[in-house]
Amino acid sequence: MTYASDNVVIVGLGLIGGSLARALRSSGFSQRFIGYGHREVSLQRGVELGVIDEFTLDLDEAIERADIIVICTPTLTTVQILEKILPRLSGRSGGPVITDVASVKGNLRTAAIAVAGVMPPQLVLGHPIAGSQYSGVNASRADLFVDHRVILTPDAANDPAAVELVRAMWCSAGAEVVDMTVEQHDAVLASTSHLPHVLAYTLVDALASADNSEDVFRCAAGGFRDFTRIASSDPTMWRDIAIANKPALLNSIDLFSDHLARLRKAVQDENAHELFNTFDRAKQARDEFATLLAQRIQPKLP
Amino acid sequence: MTYASDNVVIVGLGLIGGSLARALRSSGFSQRFIGYGHREVSLQRGVELGVIDEFTLDLDEAIERADIIVICTPTLTTVQILEKILPRLSGRSGGPVITDVASVKGNLRTAAIAVAGVMPPQLVLGHPIAGSQYSGVNASRADLFVDHRVILTPDAANDPAAVELVRAMWCSAGAEVVDMTVEQHDAVLASTSHLPHVLAYTLVDALASADNSEDVFRCAAGGFRDFTRIASSDPTMWRDIAIANKPALLNSIDLFSDHLARLRKAVQDENAHELFNTFDRAKQARDEFATLLAQRIQPKLP
Repeated sequence: MTYASDNVVIVGLGLIGGSLARALRSSGFSQRFIGYGHREVSLQRGVELGVIDEFTLDLDEAIERADIIVICTPTLTTVQILEKILPRLSGRSGGPVITDVASVKGNLRTAAIAVAGVMPPQLVLGHPIAGSQYSGVNASRADLFVDHRVILTPDAANDPAAVELVRAMWCSAGAEVVDMTVEQHDAVLASTSHLPHVLAYTLVDALASADNSEDVFRCAAGGFRDFTRIASSDPTMWRDIAIANKPALLNSIDLFSDHLARLRKAVQDENAHELFNTFDRAKQARDEFATLLAQRIQPKLP
Repeated sequence: MTYASDNVVIVGLGLIGGSLARALRSSGFSQRFIGYGHREVSLQRGVELGVIDEFTLDLDEAIERADIIVICTPTLTTVQILEKILPRLSGRSGGPVITDVASVKGNLRTAAIAVAGVMPPQLVLGHPIAGSQYSGVNASRADLFVDHRVILTPDAANDPAAVELVRAMWCSAGAEVVDMTVEQHDAVLASTSHLPHVLAYTLVDALASADNSEDVFRCAAGGFRDFTRIASSDPTMWRDIAIANKPALLNSIDLFSDHLARLRKAVQDENAHELFNTFDRAKQARDEFATLLAQRIQPKLP
């Protein structure tokens, strides 16, 4: 069975939305991409670049013409967009399939159910684990998702055909699709992304607030630069993610804090055995992960 | 005034010791490098590579012939070497200047005073902030220290000529020498290096111990790989550093934990204002640091 879609509406034409449109055009999944958003200059640029074919600033028109709507906006904006789209669909049958790319899924499900009363059958929440240090439609690339994971969180209420269309869309973009529950997704992302950002921000802010901050930053070198790179991320985006994923992030912070307290005690007690074992376990887990990741992205190399 | 040295004894011929010998030969600081250690195979390799001119396995001979001794061994080994060298010098005048490259200075000063009764005038503690993912004399490079910081921690008891000789040695290797007290050094290194390693090890170990560890490592990507890279460091070396720098490391862990607890509360309270301000302050501090670091290492670029 081959899936394809006629009109793909991209809401929010930045790096992710633009890259998805390029990938889906290139793979033949669709040949008609319509941009919707409020920043006309980005949408106009998308047309110039051939990323989208046309755009509209009218949400009703976008919904009317869409076979699939992909919301590619920041986390909290995605909630707002969903809250605008869902009421316009209620009572309609055969409406577009809707999906998204936001970093947190639980808050979106909650918002959708609050608006629609139930989880809408055609709303399939998803999250591509891909990005770049660049942003905006100018940085979009057809191969952004190749060999990257996309997590879908299908719901029991979902129309199976809607889930399969979204799955086919991401496969068509070259991604490897993984299914999880909303809770699994939010816990995994809290661990692998949201907590590390919180730790990096906290470290830099703590050191900057200390009396010896001038000496500290004067003598820090490349290792510190690499470890704190993610503390140069967009504060607005991460404020929103921290709030959107509050329950899972709090769990992750607590898990980490428990382990840090244990390690502090081992330092305090000069417990060489426990320090070595902790560092050694971590090194083994990290080396194994790095090897698996290198194998996973291998096919990209020439 | 030009400083130079006749016989430079390198204790422990690995990446750092080998690179220092190469740099000092190339700059003309000395033309005679003698290796001392217990791993004859490394020392033999050093001679083959032209890094050292000869070696000895006899500590008394090494001391007898040295004008300057640079101890380039791991942190706790440096303590043991000092404890062997210092008793052999007591009562002698005009003995060699002794310096080291270890990551912690307070424990060395304590050990030296325990052995010698006072801080020996010719013992000048130092620490080059340079390294590589490679190790061993095979990886040594004459330019390893160029544009890198070396922190010296001169003591009031030091012979000023000994301090100036060590300073001249590092300048001759292309490094930028910064003076600090032992306490300043150990606090700065705890903040910029020892704490980040503890955080990375703790994060990976905490995630590996969690119920969802398989999902976590399956879905982690490049950002997580970069943030946890230092958790692939040598567990023995970091166990030793954590114990050697216990007081400063505990302070750093406590500073960090206080800030993390504050951030946790902001997430719990959904305090968007405080989350944004923390992330924004951190981003500004980190961006400023990265800019300064890029300017500092600029001359290395062609």
